[in-house]
Amino acid sequence: MDGYRGFLGLLVSALLVGFLAVVFSLVWVLHYREGLGWDGTALEFNWHPVFMVTGFVFIQGIAIIVYRLPWTWKCSKLLMKSIHAGLHTVAAILVIISLVSVFDYHNAGNIPNMYSLHSWVGLTVVILYILQLLLGVLVFLLPWAPLSLRALVMPMHVYSGLLIFGTVIATVLMGVTEKLIFGVSGYSSFPPEGVFANTLGLLNVVFGALIFWIVTRPQWQRPKEPNPILFQPNGGAREGAEGSAINFSHVDQSDSKLNNEVAAKKRNFSVDEAGQRSTM
Amino acid sequence: MDGYRGFLGLLVSALLVGFLAVVFSLVWVLHYREGLGWDGTALEFNWHPVFMVTGFVFIQGIAIIVYRLPWTWKCSKLLMKSIHAGLHTVAAILVIISLVSVFDYHNAGNIPNMYSLHSWVGLTVVILYILQLLLGVLVFLLPWAPLSLRALVMPMHVYSGLLIFGTVIATVLMGVTEKLIFGVSGYSSFPPEGVFANTLGLLNVVFGALIFWIVTRPQWQRPKEPNPILFQPNGGAREGAEGSAINFSHVDQSDSKLNNEVAAKKRNFSVDEAGQRSTM
Repeated sequence: MDGYRGFLGLLVSALLVGFLAVVFSLVWVLHYREGLGWDGTALEFNWHPVFMVTGFVFIQGIAIIVYRLPWTWKCSKLLMKSIHAGLHTVAAILVIISLVSVFDYHNAGNIPNMYSLHSWVGLTVVILYILQLLLGVLVFLLPWAPLSLRALVMPMHVYSGLLIFGTVIATVLMGVTEKLIFGVSGYSSFPPEGVFANTLGLLNVVFGALIFWIVTRPQWQRPKEPNPILFQPNGGAREGAEGSAINFSHVDQSDSKLNNEVAAKKRNFSVDEAGQRSTM
Repeated sequence: MDGYRGFLGLLVSALLVGFLAVVFSLVWVLHYREGLGWDGTALEFNWHPVFMVTGFVFIQGIAIIVYRLPWTWKCSKLLMKSIHAGLHTVAAILVIISLVSVFDYHNAGNIPNMYSLHSWVGLTVVILYILQLLLGVLVFLLPWAPLSLRALVMPMHVYSGLLIFGTVIATVLMGVTEKLIFGVSGYSSFPPEGVFANTLGLLNVVFGALIFWIVTRPQWQRPKEPNPILFQPNGGAREGAEGSAINFSHVDQSDSKLNNEVAAKKRNFSVDEAGQRSTM
């Protein structure tokens, strides 16, 4: 792997910053707020930030870069896809519990639902996340989708995955802002809770920035594995089928004239190739 | 250009959505708020959302995709880089005026500055934007930087450009949230202003999503122009020098064995190539 030490440094930083964000969300609700519980009061609401930061930010972020861990490159593609989908499923479960907690809290206290920009963007992104997960399992994990369909869907899968992840972080920032304005009297006089929760917001941004850097470096992509059943219809579906998109490394018209011939050959292979490429 | 009609459709959508966001920001302050002025009151504050949406979101978004407009591919690279830098400069000027308006308003009304997460993330991203602009002009627009430096800086330039753009949109969402909670009594009872400003937030997200899609499609990249002075040190600096990064199309170890030989040749050319590639 090119730049292995750089990768490792960024990965450790991402893990530390992401873990710190989770710890901060816990300290926020346990130390500065009322604590945790499941009784329709603020204690139940407090699961909302904890599970969102843990599931929707931290675990989703790790799920996004899991194909890039070089020590997994010996593992089968099916295993890695299962881990990718599994982590996203864990995240989705935490997200749903987190949503239940906030709706429960609102309903118990007669607080209206779904009026804020945070809730509009947040619910939209939860729905898109679950659709993305279902579509991902259907097209990439289960063995039935033809390679051509996988190649077609992959660029959208990668794009919407990263868009969802970025939008989740934006939604967390809105959530922190809302909670601080509603819940902390004298937010404008720099109380410890305000500074602490602002820092939680920054940790989320830095974690997102690290994940985006890691996932968009072409040199840290999982190498394409040799696939003897490349030319069979739906071949390699169990082991190696996944399209290429995150590195946007399709040969396009802007490629150097140097490799025009091979580019032409490569274009002819693009569907099969996309079907067995590991990208994220 | 592959998929020209798709590109055109998305471009027109982005322009419409972005323009609508600007119109919404104006209607918000003129119809729902106090209007515009420059007197230290809320009228002066109201320039803040208008100029941020206009400059930091809309104009920055257009600046990001300007290299991808196919009818500019006949224009010289220097002209396109000047337009790219010029649009970012216009955006930066609006952003600075927008910041002055909010600090003026706070100071005139004895409202503390820089306590909110919105202000922390926002000021950070403004500083990064100006640094990015200065570094971009120094390295890519002015003719002195060697190609090797340009190739080195380009991936970071593209990454931080997109990260800044995404973070700006997140900051706008926090700003809308803040203003609605502080300024609109009964935000939770779905007043027209709340719904309207929420929609403004959504327009910003959709605009960002369209720009991200347009700028990450490899097939819509500006084609590399033939450059007769490719091998001269610092050659083509005036006309064609810009690194490749947005399409992450470097040949890396995951490339098909099909073109291993050409890949090897291409790697040797990578610095020169990066120096004359047009990517965004």
